[in-house]
Amino acid sequence: MIELRSDTFSLPSVDMLNSISKAILGDDVYGLDLTVKELEKKAANMLGKEAAILMPSGTMANLASILAHCPRGSKVLVGDKSDIYIYEAGGASVCGGVIYEPIKTEADGILKISNVEKAFPIDIHDPQFALPSLLCIENPSNRTGGNILPLGYLEELFYYTREKEIALHMDGARIFNAAIALQIPADRIAMYADSVQFCLSKGLSAPIGSIVAGTEQFINKVRRIRKMLGGGMRQAGIIAAPGIVALDNMAQTLKKDHTKAKNLARYLSLIDEIEINASIEINMVFFTLKPEYSTDKFITTCAMFGLNIDELEPGVIRAVLHRNISDEDILDTIEIIKRAIPLSKQEGRIYR
Amino acid sequence: MIELRSDTFSLPSVDMLNSISKAILGDDVYGLDLTVKELEKKAANMLGKEAAILMPSGTMANLASILAHCPRGSKVLVGDKSDIYIYEAGGASVCGGVIYEPIKTEADGILKISNVEKAFPIDIHDPQFALPSLLCIENPSNRTGGNILPLGYLEELFYYTREKEIALHMDGARIFNAAIALQIPADRIAMYADSVQFCLSKGLSAPIGSIVAGTEQFINKVRRIRKMLGGGMRQAGIIAAPGIVALDNMAQTLKKDHTKAKNLARYLSLIDEIEINASIEINMVFFTLKPEYSTDKFITTCAMFGLNIDELEPGVIRAVLHRNISDEDILDTIEIIKRAIPLSKQEGRIYR
Amino acid sequence: MIELRSDTFSLPSVDMLNSISKAILGDDVYGLDLTVKELEKKAANMLGKEAAILMPSGTMANLASILAHCPRGSKVLVGDKSDIYIYEAGGASVCGGVIYEPIKTEADGILKISNVEKAFPIDIHDPQFALPSLLCIENPSNRTGGNILPLGYLEELFYYTREKEIALHMDGARIFNAAIALQIPADRIAMYADSVQFCLSKGLSAPIGSIVAGTEQFINKVRRIRKMLGGGMRQAGIIAAPGIVALDNMAQTLKKDHTKAKNLARYLSLIDEIEINASIEINMVFFTLKPEYSTDKFITTCAMFGLNIDELEPGVIRAVLHRNISDEDILDTIEIIKRAIPLSKQEGRIYR
Amino acid sequence: MIELRSDTFSLPSVDMLNSISKAILGDDVYGLDLTVKELEKKAANMLGKEAAILMPSGTMANLASILAHCPRGSKVLVGDKSDIYIYEAGGASVCGGVIYEPIKTEADGILKISNVEKAFPIDIHDPQFALPSLLCIENPSNRTGGNILPLGYLEELFYYTREKEIALHMDGARIFNAAIALQIPADRIAMYADSVQFCLSKGLSAPIGSIVAGTEQFINKVRRIRKMLGGGMRQAGIIAAPGIVALDNMAQTLKKDHTKAKNLARYLSLIDEIEINASIEINMVFFTLKPEYSTDKFITTCAMFGLNIDELEPGVIRAVLHRNISDEDILDTIEIIKRAIPLSKQEGRIYR
Repeated sequence: MIELRSDTFSLPSVDMLNSISKAILGDDVYGLDLTVKELEKKAANMLGKEAAILMPSGTMANLASILAHCPRGSKVLVGDKSDIYIYEAGGASVCGGVIYEPIKTEADGILKISNVEKAFPIDIHDPQFALPSLLCIENPSNRTGGNILPLGYLEELFYYTREKEIALHMDGARIFNAAIALQIPADRIAMYADSVQFCLSKGLSAPIGSIVAGTEQFINKVRRIRKMLGGGMRQAGIIAAPGIVALDNMAQTLKKDHTKAKNLARYLSLIDEIEINASIEINMVFFTLKPEYSTDKFITTCAMFGLNIDELEPGVIRAVLHRNISDEDILDTIEIIKRAIPLSKQEGRIYR
Repeated sequence: MIELRSDTFSLPSVDMLNSISKAILGDDVYGLDLTVKELEKKAANMLGKEAAILMPSGTMANLASILAHCPRGSKVLVGDKSDIYIYEAGGASVCGGVIYEPIKTEADGILKISNVEKAFPIDIHDPQFALPSLLCIENPSNRTGGNILPLGYLEELFYYTREKEIALHMDGARIFNAAIALQIPADRIAMYADSVQFCLSKGLSAPIGSIVAGTEQFINKVRRIRKMLGGGMRQAGIIAAPGIVALDNMAQTLKKDHTKAKNLARYLSLIDEIEINASIEINMVFFTLKPEYSTDKFITTCAMFGLNIDELEPGVIRAVLHRNISDEDILDTIEIIKRAIPLSKQEGRIYR
Repeated sequence: MIELRSDTFSLPSVDMLNSISKAILGDDVYGLDLTVKELEKKAANMLGKEAAILMPSGTMANLASILAHCPRGSKVLVGDKSDIYIYEAGGASVCGGVIYEPIKTEADGILKISNVEKAFPIDIHDPQFALPSLLCIENPSNRTGGNILPLGYLEELFYYTREKEIALHMDGARIFNAAIALQIPADRIAMYADSVQFCLSKGLSAPIGSIVAGTEQFINKVRRIRKMLGGGMRQAGIIAAPGIVALDNMAQTLKKDHTKAKNLARYLSLIDEIEINASIEINMVFFTLKPEYSTDKFITTCAMFGLNIDELEPGVIRAVLHRNISDEDILDTIEIIKRAIPLSKQEGRIYR
Repeated sequence: MIELRSDTFSLPSVDMLNSISKAILGDDVYGLDLTVKELEKKAANMLGKEAAILMPSGTMANLASILAHCPRGSKVLVGDKSDIYIYEAGGASVCGGVIYEPIKTEADGILKISNVEKAFPIDIHDPQFALPSLLCIENPSNRTGGNILPLGYLEELFYYTREKEIALHMDGARIFNAAIALQIPADRIAMYADSVQFCLSKGLSAPIGSIVAGTEQFINKVRRIRKMLGGGMRQAGIIAAPGIVALDNMAQTLKKDHTKAKNLARYLSLIDEIEINASIEINMVFFTLKPEYSTDKFITTCAMFGLNIDELEPGVIRAVLHRNISDEDILDTIEIIKRAIPLSKQEGRIYR
């Protein structure tokens, strides 16, 4: 099976598995797992932040960050196409009494400041209005195609949030993909956010885990919330050890993933029945079929032939490249797609 | 002062105040205030519902309804220009762990079914997604200009929600304005909703209070939630008595309010510097100034001359007619506006 | 019917009802009801606090106070026999993500500091523990018999909370009963709390409403929360006007209520089958029947004879005196009780 | 360092670490990690339940179970000395709007049914009262000394909860210790609960993880809540693999731990300055020092000599035996304690 639904399917390397066997372990709920401490320090350094903390998932990393930033009854402003808003089950409202306000996400993944501005009421003393306390941005932006937000935009947004006296959290699930693509260190991106989360378990290929980084005071708040949510883990070094390997060796892997994505996109662009925006920024390829083809049928047919891809929103197909996809897999992918297309013709009209 | 900011400013009539003095009172927390019981029964009958309950405000009426319909962690779908979403401080997230998902409100106040449909995830078993449990509509729709939703649309929407297995709550704060304008009884509108709230304290002129109506089982749930929120009141008959007067006598009052609104709109449409959509459905008039005038300055100047009006969203001015506005007040309003306009010229450019 | 279940059954006086008719009303959600402003100012003055706010109920007054004091995830320490813990539906957990920790209530209504101390974890930095942010006391203490907490105790407790850096909220639902009984102004009691709530609708006989008082900053927070909970009311002057009358005239009423309670207790103590603690501090009388009598049967029988009393906890009967109970009613009460007792013999044994 | 603060400090065995390297991994958020599936099936079988689910911690296992059982605004009844109430940061109130009601824990760890009964209000229709929806018991009971709850008691309690129409959740963090000690399979204990959680990371020595087991429908609810809390993990097989080893090999380990605990207790009972209840049921030893010694000083001194033990509540010391404690460590422990005692004399009086 060629698995292109997400880079979360990437499997740990042999080095990572070996690192687990050799890791020095302790009870991290007591703060005594040295491998976890090493990972947290390394991650904080790479993002240029005072402190960092290991979380069991990106969902908890974002959730705990929102809870640490936002008092009960305040608003978190999020992109209307962001993972935080769509894929994280509304946790901030459930666990934190925080109200989500979605802001229009532009085609290139940014949230216009003029749109963010509309979330602030004319009169902040009027108790009818919940007040924004946090803006979340996603960088790169997944659902718009893996777009990297420009540094100039990030800077402008950061200073805007200072002026509005709200915090800025960056969902940088794939921030290292952005850093590699821009050929800059990740801290050059992270500097424009009060807090950043990134995933060890996506392109970085570690089996489990995400990191939140920020000030020491903020991370202490996140640590408290992590315990309450049930994210405190005992010998968490078995998660941290492959995370360290990931951070040490990622540059090569992610670079290759981006090349694979560009190759796949190039091949796809040669297929008549496919429409694709050829500008690939990271490891993701988005495309659509011409209207006479059924996306549902296409995906099912591909799966029967051994290729897993996903429909992200109606008609939009996403393929994500990662460590376990070889160049040969890409060629096979193209072959399968070519065979699946003619079998995917619409019958009659489909109304959405 | 001519007060056109809202019909919530309408004062109780002499009849209403007299009704308070004569009301039979009891402790309504024990269910023993007969005047409250009478109001609740009358309101349920008028809306064609099994039961009804008195609430201290429309905010609590909507909040308790959402909490009664929506389990923790589910989504309430609301218009992005609805009062519930904008003016009620996010209570359902705070008090109920319910996630708001705003749906685009069209210019005529409706939410398109195709847009509501997008709120449902492709795979409802995927735990990434919070699932919708309730759709709220606002009828008439305040922020789009007081639009009455067509009965055919309500019917279609109601059956759509049956199909999707979610409840439908109608924020009918001014439902009697709609009924009067359509010349039908209110139950012909309310029949397309599982629950309805309306306000006694807007055009109906009662001093305090809102009603929720629905099935008996639902109202029992709302009663429990009302107590938890702190909306259980003792000799609430002093609120209910004028509410009964309001329901008995409203037809005349509301009809007059609509005529006043049409008159005001007609006069405004004759003023060159004002842009106004002349189709007035209920007791609200929305207008804008030509771009060379500052709305802020205009509102401030009007206030100095004795007229209170409000900017509902940037540049959009709302005037709401009610019982305490006489025909003469309308003429005075026009005079004040005419004097205020030339004093409201923009200086330089304003960036929003 | 002689209604002794609670002083919440007290009906408004003619003066109160007249005050409604004459009240200057406005829209209090806009802060424009002068009668409400007058009541809030008067109440703040009487309690020696900077500011006060009118609420639709004591439940909301306590709930909003807790939410204003306690950040999400912190603990509110409450008496295990307090109204806040038992009768307010757990609102602080539901609406605020606040954890209740009940502290043993002594027979005289106090919470021992040594017991409060146990609620603080050994290591406050350990994220396993939710941390206390607020202590609530009830004065007088309802369920222990209407006990007035000694001033010396209040002072000691207040300084203890300073040391522990938590706030102190007084549920002073009947604080004026305490003040009258102690023959001191209420501010001498309220000075030992950061915030105080009291009810206008209990012994004070106003139909609806409670007050929260505290610093201006605190009351502003409460005002915001009140709106979110749905406690913002329009022409709330109809509630405030009788509240003002209540505050102006209460001294006489409450004093008489205390005398009536003492009289009732004295008569009851002469009945063989009744056990009663003769020390009556405010307007409440608690008594029990000798074990061979069934409390359930007794209460039902009294009700049939025209007397309503309540079982507060298994076997404990409460009678509350108020404005609408005459001296004759007390004599009738005794007659009814004497007739009911022999009809209330236990049949067989009852196991609880 | 001899680490007796908790069995959570137990390190994974070589077999466990090897199992990780050989595990078949997949993305468990997509339900595609076969090792996780294997563990979940095995655990469900061992507990005699339809289904089970892997969680990152016992805290999340309990929290998600409570949220799955309890609607918003209902009460969870918990032992006042239970881990759920004391050590889990109040998560059910924060994340679920659920109210904790602590029930007195007896010296042997049980909650008396007569005490549980008191949590139910006289009138369940009275909206003043939050209603119980779940009873949690802890078996074995940690803070009372590791007591195993008798099967007869469990049965009685289970049928009591049927009668009251509430669910019963067992915090069986160390349920296998109980099963081993009673020489019965764990499903004989688990049968008296609707849901059970146990920890892989305590005596079972796996590095991370807990299990919740129950009906399939219940586990599906827990799965949804797990995602929302952020407990969905990617290649979670690296946690599950050692969990499988733990379940396969635990019997020996836990049996030895119990023997070690009995040995330690026997040695301690020979020390004059120590008071100890010699009846050891599982792997925990609780003891106190005679009043002339300071527990604080004693613990600090032991730590300096290389022994970590903990004060669980004022004056009560807990030592927990586990896989990494050898017989020699026990002898060393006794030596250290004997040296530490004379150095731990109280100076002056200590007031608590």
